[in-house]
Amino acid sequence: MAGSTYGNIFRITTWGESHGKALGVVIDGCPAGLELEEADIQRYLDRRKPGVSRIATPRKEEDTVEILSGVFEGRTTGTPISLMVRNTSQRSGDYGEIASCYRPGHADYTFDKKYGFRDYRGGGRSSGRETVGRVAAGAVACKILEALGVRICAYTRSIGPVEADMEKFDEMAIRETLTAMPDCEADAAAVTCLEQARMERDSLGGCMECVVEGLPAGIGDPVFEKLDANLAKAIMSIGAVKAVEIGDGCRVSRSRGSENNDAFRMEEGRTVKTTNHAGGILGGISDGDTVRIRAYVKPTPSIFRTQQTVNRTGEETELNIRGRHDPVIVPRAVVVMECMTAITVLDAMLLNLSARMDCVIKFYRKEE
Amino acid sequence: MAGSTYGNIFRITTWGESHGKALGVVIDGCPAGLELEEADIQRYLDRRKPGVSRIATPRKEEDTVEILSGVFEGRTTGTPISLMVRNTSQRSGDYGEIASCYRPGHADYTFDKKYGFRDYRGGGRSSGRETVGRVAAGAVACKILEALGVRICAYTRSIGPVEADMEKFDEMAIRETLTAMPDCEADAAAVTCLEQARMERDSLGGCMECVVEGLPAGIGDPVFEKLDANLAKAIMSIGAVKAVEIGDGCRVSRSRGSENNDAFRMEEGRTVKTTNHAGGILGGISDGDTVRIRAYVKPTPSIFRTQQTVNRTGEETELNIRGRHDPVIVPRAVVVMECMTAITVLDAMLLNLSARMDCVIKFYRKEE
Amino acid sequence: MAGSTYGNIFRITTWGESHGKALGVVIDGCPAGLELEEADIQRYLDRRKPGVSRIATPRKEEDTVEILSGVFEGRTTGTPISLMVRNTSQRSGDYGEIASCYRPGHADYTFDKKYGFRDYRGGGRSSGRETVGRVAAGAVACKILEALGVRICAYTRSIGPVEADMEKFDEMAIRETLTAMPDCEADAAAVTCLEQARMERDSLGGCMECVVEGLPAGIGDPVFEKLDANLAKAIMSIGAVKAVEIGDGCRVSRSRGSENNDAFRMEEGRTVKTTNHAGGILGGISDGDTVRIRAYVKPTPSIFRTQQTVNRTGEETELNIRGRHDPVIVPRAVVVMECMTAITVLDAMLLNLSARMDCVIKFYRKEE
Amino acid sequence: MAGSTYGNIFRITTWGESHGKALGVVIDGCPAGLELEEADIQRYLDRRKPGVSRIATPRKEEDTVEILSGVFEGRTTGTPISLMVRNTSQRSGDYGEIASCYRPGHADYTFDKKYGFRDYRGGGRSSGRETVGRVAAGAVACKILEALGVRICAYTRSIGPVEADMEKFDEMAIRETLTAMPDCEADAAAVTCLEQARMERDSLGGCMECVVEGLPAGIGDPVFEKLDANLAKAIMSIGAVKAVEIGDGCRVSRSRGSENNDAFRMEEGRTVKTTNHAGGILGGISDGDTVRIRAYVKPTPSIFRTQQTVNRTGEETELNIRGRHDPVIVPRAVVVMECMTAITVLDAMLLNLSARMDCVIKFYRKEE
Repeated sequence: MAGSTYGNIFRITTWGESHGKALGVVIDGCPAGLELEEADIQRYLDRRKPGVSRIATPRKEEDTVEILSGVFEGRTTGTPISLMVRNTSQRSGDYGEIASCYRPGHADYTFDKKYGFRDYRGGGRSSGRETVGRVAAGAVACKILEALGVRICAYTRSIGPVEADMEKFDEMAIRETLTAMPDCEADAAAVTCLEQARMERDSLGGCMECVVEGLPAGIGDPVFEKLDANLAKAIMSIGAVKAVEIGDGCRVSRSRGSENNDAFRMEEGRTVKTTNHAGGILGGISDGDTVRIRAYVKPTPSIFRTQQTVNRTGEETELNIRGRHDPVIVPRAVVVMECMTAITVLDAMLLNLSARMDCVIKFYRKEE
Repeated sequence: MAGSTYGNIFRITTWGESHGKALGVVIDGCPAGLELEEADIQRYLDRRKPGVSRIATPRKEEDTVEILSGVFEGRTTGTPISLMVRNTSQRSGDYGEIASCYRPGHADYTFDKKYGFRDYRGGGRSSGRETVGRVAAGAVACKILEALGVRICAYTRSIGPVEADMEKFDEMAIRETLTAMPDCEADAAAVTCLEQARMERDSLGGCMECVVEGLPAGIGDPVFEKLDANLAKAIMSIGAVKAVEIGDGCRVSRSRGSENNDAFRMEEGRTVKTTNHAGGILGGISDGDTVRIRAYVKPTPSIFRTQQTVNRTGEETELNIRGRHDPVIVPRAVVVMECMTAITVLDAMLLNLSARMDCVIKFYRKEE
Repeated sequence: MAGSTYGNIFRITTWGESHGKALGVVIDGCPAGLELEEADIQRYLDRRKPGVSRIATPRKEEDTVEILSGVFEGRTTGTPISLMVRNTSQRSGDYGEIASCYRPGHADYTFDKKYGFRDYRGGGRSSGRETVGRVAAGAVACKILEALGVRICAYTRSIGPVEADMEKFDEMAIRETLTAMPDCEADAAAVTCLEQARMERDSLGGCMECVVEGLPAGIGDPVFEKLDANLAKAIMSIGAVKAVEIGDGCRVSRSRGSENNDAFRMEEGRTVKTTNHAGGILGGISDGDTVRIRAYVKPTPSIFRTQQTVNRTGEETELNIRGRHDPVIVPRAVVVMECMTAITVLDAMLLNLSARMDCVIKFYRKEE
Repeated sequence: MAGSTYGNIFRITTWGESHGKALGVVIDGCPAGLELEEADIQRYLDRRKPGVSRIATPRKEEDTVEILSGVFEGRTTGTPISLMVRNTSQRSGDYGEIASCYRPGHADYTFDKKYGFRDYRGGGRSSGRETVGRVAAGAVACKILEALGVRICAYTRSIGPVEADMEKFDEMAIRETLTAMPDCEADAAAVTCLEQARMERDSLGGCMECVVEGLPAGIGDPVFEKLDANLAKAIMSIGAVKAVEIGDGCRVSRSRGSENNDAFRMEEGRTVKTTNHAGGILGGISDGDTVRIRAYVKPTPSIFRTQQTVNRTGEETELNIRGRHDPVIVPRAVVVMECMTAITVLDAMLLNLSARMDCVIKFYRKEE
């Protein structure tokens, strides 16, 4: 139970380290009969690849996915789908120094305390490359959700001091801008900030947001398996995320009941809310409105300044990190947020199939 | 899997509705040999009881706990500990109107959409009374953690616009103030605000914080079962919480790597951090520093103003909520946050026992 | 994870000791909308009660069940159903001697080794009374299965040397005979054997069988969650069961492929098997035929002869068991087998709802 | 939750089909610091390979394992261990006919009913090749158990009518005989039987046994997670197993309490049993004695006689199976039984680390 399995019905198990032979994921519990090919997954992996841009690391990660099992004649069979990406561009030599000393803001020290030693090459299992498996599995979840009429979209809300203007929301921009912002002007300003930070051998944090549209009311469970609780876990489990908000998030603490309550009304025969402070979830269960989640991401801990730290033998020392590191994590984490949200929402939808006796009876009596 | 079970090794299952016969919890996996009596648990339940104060609801909830199993001759036996609290003060008559129409900000609508109908008395399973089981189980977790040298403390950071001044932190005040604030002056100001809100038939939100001290480094798992991810789930699963922060939380998005990285240094032969922006967790694993979590709580949705809503048959209607409702949720939720944190941290500590071969070998070879 | 939770979707958690205040079970994940009242459950509990007969213990166990939560206006709400039975007839005085020494064939020694001590009153958690919770939960599972057209029936196949003649199978006899045999003649012979054994201060073992009818093909999962694997666990988890067979069971080891293979043929437009050596399960998945499971139960370990044993302080000693003990376990275990089978089969049926994309799409697209 | 994950702390997830690109397993929760190399695993995989013998299939399966993650500098890191075996010798052409019709005794029909279609090449996921992942993971479990002083050994008890004589038990013979019997004479007789069966275009069943030695008392949990219950599931989940016995197994049904009870006595300061009818488990918890499990395996369903069956479109038809099939399953299943037993026992031992407060306190207080 080292924690690499996630989900109940749609259950994923990821594996692999930054500089190991390969990374991958096994998806167990994917419904049978979904059309699936490698291109469906590659599309998502390509979104987490570092670009050739000014702001991203110049590493060339091919990240070509291979479907090893669970798909036959172009459709999922209901048995485990094993997806693998071979590591190809590791340059282990760059990471020599971190074998013996603890990088501030990284998991080097905590891994050593837990396990007694660690795979220090490129962060090993705590590297951002660990998300390759999440994204590969998330691509499958997204494809299923699409067939169910549920659409998930994540983007960058802010980088450092620069916020996207949501009034100018442009979905096309998300895929086209370097920052994954839905606002080209903010993107340009953020890129300037990032170049400045890089020149100062520093890094920036940011905020990303994910919206789920088309989710029917009634998804999620009361008490511990609330949809928002599971989303909070899913998103907080992405490295570098330090805060998660649902709907109005932190702002509710300064709101009043009369402002924060979303009134219900009828619209074309359906119950809707006049506002959506709740972010689409009431009592842990979706209310049919847009689900809205935000995550706050810390600045890249690998900076090119001299840092004070200690080494494995308990001596204070100075550390100078070399290698290739993005000055901001957010743009590449956006697709990871989208994927973790998709897996969480899909799992809740599959669990929900057994919520009512009448539906269970209809399923089995119809089969006859 | 309706979501009323939480934890892996120390696993709790809560049950009960606001106006049912009783509420309770079954704790499975509690280590054998812990001294435990009802008074240990009652102490925590008393902290979530509404007071006789001006700001709290005038309901009289006795909430007397009964240990039904799992304790023999004053010690836990290793088998399930069943704890029950009988409901005694329900006045179902007060809740007649909400049987047919959906209260804004509540789970009435979403329960109906999920299950087809609901126990509408006092919110049923989505009532704040559901936390009785969490608190009873958390009391046991806290007692175990104490024996392991881990101490957990939660308190109110803010109510509406009033923030506690952490420079004046006074732990005694937490238990003595009406608001569970660690600052008597802020408490007085918050009470004034609450009285004002109540006069205006409105309610306030707030923020609560929980700190974990004495937690050794190495607790938590990489990837999905990160300690912070599990804390986020645990705390977000408390009704009305809309945001969770670890360490600096949202602020990291505007911080720079050079500010946010906590440098390591040696102190009395131990590795420590010079700052604690990380909130005691790096890469999902505790780093030996204080763990710090904040939760943002929405204003009580039950307000005494006329609200627009719809009823079960799809007609728009006006709702006037009656009954007894606190104008703020935070003060009574503080102990719930403490308990959910305790359960989560304890479970991670018990899982951690098998992290290393040398420890496993020592355990079994010593037994010989 | 002390092992008192069972099932994935329909998930039960039992608690309670032989001589504690009460025993019970929490059912989480029961679909909403099932009509349920205490009488539905009491009927099953009454079947595990000791009779007033010559062969059963003269204890008077009332075992009156109380529904504490999860049912509103006569229907399940989808939230946890808490069921409790108060203990009323404990005579702890009878059990003084076993506090300090280990009864052969019982779990006294193993509990002490695991937990350091034990609740020795009446066997504590390892008593047959632990099955009260299983039976209460199983009654609910059976009621759901009935609505789905699945029928489960368990009975005694043999007691000591006396076997029921399956040619004379009489379902009424199961409930009416002292031995729960479906054959009145065999019942009479078995009762004679039991009286003889009791006179000799000895006890007998036996065999019980359970059949599941009306189960559609396609239930169960490949690999680890095979339907037969889960049934084996469920049945072997009943105290005193030492062997489990599916279909032809042990006999397959001496069969040949040409005999053991069940040929397929068409009957009224449906695929059926000409024989059922497989016991209704192929590759871990139900094939639409009758599922048949047998369990072999050891003789009651509490016998009234002087036995050699050791005590807690490591001294050899002689033990004379007093109290009230049935000379055979099987007749009262039959309903437990029926209930564990029902819970297992129901859980597999609920899990199966998400097996195919087309069914998932139909469920959610129809909702619109 | 398609059922390809097994275990709680030491948790394995297998994937792969008979004729897919590869098969494999991910082990999550393996303690860090175990020395591990591919040769440790290859040794076990070689035992499940078909030989060049007269009785086994002439297929050449190389089954070369590759460690893809979780091992660094020759030791496990505590993170997921991904093991893969590429498929190399598939001849899909042989399996054309079974695409459209249902082989008796196989899972073809039940897979189609569950999932709507299936990967028909060589049985797909229901093929015996699925056990490659189990054996690879089991090899790791065995290595850990060895370090803990626990030794597991499985062998063939009988094939068709030929039983090994346990008086002549010869451990070396297990690895050397074609049948994995611990008795060379019985092996010779069994081989003759198998040749006869093959000439008659038929197949034989058999029985295999597994013993666990050195397991300390106190392993396993009461109620549902009994050690014997989990072993029953683990072993019954191996394809073709139709019955599982613990200790005396079925024979207990005809035993008397005075015979079946194992008396306790002292030996060299330790509590031991004078007999072991219980098979080393009392009340679901190990008693320190040898654990003994037996499994009964059906005859290979793929026989070379004409069989009656139906096809996918619901027509009756005749089937003639071609290809390469062993006339008995047992000899190659022996190592699978050993591995599933090892995984189950190890997982119970790791869970047991948190059973007692004093041990938990010692672990964490010593760390300081």
